[in-house]
Amino acid sequence: MLRTNLGRRIPEGMRDLLPEEVALQERLERDILAFFKLWSYRSVLTPTLEYGACVQPNIEEEGIFYKFFDSKGRFLALRPELTTPIARLVCTRMRGEPLPLRLCYGADVYRDIPVRHKEFRQVGVELVGSAEELADAEVITLAVEALTLIGLENYRFNLGHMGIFSALMLEAGVDGEMRGKLEEAMARKDLVGVENLVAGSALPKKMRELCIQLPHFRGGEEILDEVLHWSERPELREAVESLRKIYRLLDAFGVQGKVSLDLGMLRGFDYYTGTIFEGYVSGVGFPVVEGGRYDALYADFGVPQPATGFAVHLGTLLEQFPPAAVAAAEILVYGRNEEALIEQCKNLRDQGKRVEMALGLMDEKEARRIAQLKKIPEVLSAAICSWTE
Amino acid sequence: MLRTNLGRRIPEGMRDLLPEEVALQERLERDILAFFKLWSYRSVLTPTLEYGACVQPNIEEEGIFYKFFDSKGRFLALRPELTTPIARLVCTRMRGEPLPLRLCYGADVYRDIPVRHKEFRQVGVELVGSAEELADAEVITLAVEALTLIGLENYRFNLGHMGIFSALMLEAGVDGEMRGKLEEAMARKDLVGVENLVAGSALPKKMRELCIQLPHFRGGEEILDEVLHWSERPELREAVESLRKIYRLLDAFGVQGKVSLDLGMLRGFDYYTGTIFEGYVSGVGFPVVEGGRYDALYADFGVPQPATGFAVHLGTLLEQFPPAAVAAAEILVYGRNEEALIEQCKNLRDQGKRVEMALGLMDEKEARRIAQLKKIPEVLSAAICSWTE
Repeated sequence: MLRTNLGRRIPEGMRDLLPEEVALQERLERDILAFFKLWSYRSVLTPTLEYGACVQPNIEEEGIFYKFFDSKGRFLALRPELTTPIARLVCTRMRGEPLPLRLCYGADVYRDIPVRHKEFRQVGVELVGSAEELADAEVITLAVEALTLIGLENYRFNLGHMGIFSALMLEAGVDGEMRGKLEEAMARKDLVGVENLVAGSALPKKMRELCIQLPHFRGGEEILDEVLHWSERPELREAVESLRKIYRLLDAFGVQGKVSLDLGMLRGFDYYTGTIFEGYVSGVGFPVVEGGRYDALYADFGVPQPATGFAVHLGTLLEQFPPAAVAAAEILVYGRNEEALIEQCKNLRDQGKRVEMALGLMDEKEARRIAQLKKIPEVLSAAICSWTE
Repeated sequence: MLRTNLGRRIPEGMRDLLPEEVALQERLERDILAFFKLWSYRSVLTPTLEYGACVQPNIEEEGIFYKFFDSKGRFLALRPELTTPIARLVCTRMRGEPLPLRLCYGADVYRDIPVRHKEFRQVGVELVGSAEELADAEVITLAVEALTLIGLENYRFNLGHMGIFSALMLEAGVDGEMRGKLEEAMARKDLVGVENLVAGSALPKKMRELCIQLPHFRGGEEILDEVLHWSERPELREAVESLRKIYRLLDAFGVQGKVSLDLGMLRGFDYYTGTIFEGYVSGVGFPVVEGGRYDALYADFGVPQPATGFAVHLGTLLEQFPPAAVAAAEILVYGRNEEALIEQCKNLRDQGKRVEMALGLMDEKEARRIAQLKKIPEVLSAAICSWTE
């Protein structure tokens, strides 16, 4: 049936990958996963379709999901990320595996929001069952090293801690709704929004100042001492000292130079409870790595466990790499006798050569024309069984 | 937010893949695609979401699709197979590439029908731009060899030709509706259904007999001569001689022994026009390979080209292989000093070892307990820097 114009197009935010793009994405993913495996991570895979009740338990939230209903009226969603589905998996079929559990994945995720790529590949890890700062430092190191090993140079990571913001809000006596709005504005890095919220509030002067300053607390370890001056709360000290320990461990791991502390950083997915981090590549206006600690998520699935992890948004990084042409074949074999052609191709493939068999009986001139079009460097006649250049 | 029971489950027909299952599926896919590449095929990838107007242009058909509507009310579908999306790709972004074009893929497909796996991995090829019997024989050979190379033994292929049925229907003067019903019953291998249809028809005796016999035309080349007795139509002779040529080429390719002719075989997807073939593995009640020639599909996208291809339903084959445990790490490194621990792990990973870092300071006894639980063969203390068995 003849296709309409719509039937010849792809939906918004989707894309086709040509041979050189597939080869690039596969190479990057393979290299990153091989690296994770050296650190003892094992690959798992969850389905594309999940119940909404798994990935978006609060049905009233505005989701970022592609969603629809199954024949029984249950809300289904295409997975928007892997952290929640893997929590479901660990709490069900993998329940009882010795902890800590180190898992990794490469999979497509789907987000129905107005961005360039609504389907893109993610490669990531989940480290489940350890609350140690060493665990945080391990996953942050993996994230940093993953970008290095695929050949990126101009990238930086920001590292924050949800507990610092929480403690300061406690200190300021900021309530639920106001806190939510402030958190949202800060997560969006909307400094004007933060200022407006604070100006219209009944906060004491010191706390107004702090809210406005928090997004500017960025840099090295010195800013940790600075933030401690703002409050005597043990919750603040605890979060700051945990972050300090992680930051120092990053030095031992050799990646601290790529990481800046950013105490005003807050994050979208609401499951983060401790450290949060983001990786940015020069020239890309959104984070290409997102991660952090999410110590409450597993309890939501009935098996409380601390956990930390991240995802590299690999699919959004492909444009950072020069396209490498994918040569199909090394040799084009042609001939006037099909049995001889088949035999010749088989012999060459048995030697590990990539061979294109010319379809249709043809002479040398025609074979050379095809080889040139297809950029196949060598041409061989099956009839005479000799090499020609 | 605490998950309900539904939120801890996966939708019907979906599945999680554990580390050993991911490793198995990845290995099979990698081996098959590497083999296709020796035959000059290049990987492409199309999106998970397609417009219904692409994959199901006739909206009135009962589909096998997961479908939903985008915000503009356009019907979207999860791809049920790759042949149609690749036709769309070749006729748009890849238009102008020199033909014949050899493409391959590994991707998940989605079918909302009551079968065990509604999402499963497919690995396949498309050979576009050649009507030669050699092209048919090449793809059938690739399908047969793919099953051999992943280690399957008890499998068989059936090979038929849509043109034989068409020609016999012409000879019988069977009209559109009756023909559709017969084709459907034969595709389902519903022999009782065929008999009932024929019994209730006004067909001449000879043709009734033929319809009932057609599903039994199975075997080697001899059945081709047999079917020729039924009609003098040139369309029949053409289809039979084309199939004979392909079948003989399969002998040259060395795979004919795995393939039986089956003239009553007809197929579900309505785009097949010439050869059709199916691969069966002993003990699996449905085809694990499906393929054939579809010479009309590309015209539907505005660029008429003959084409042939197949897909291996890899995801439905995983149970055929014994699960191989995936060892996470070779060495567990523990210690009482985090810097030393990090350093020791780094040194071992630099040597290519898969290393698990014990999280939390611990003594040898605890480290050995963990290593035993996790089946990690070696334990090493970072403090004393010596091997222990």
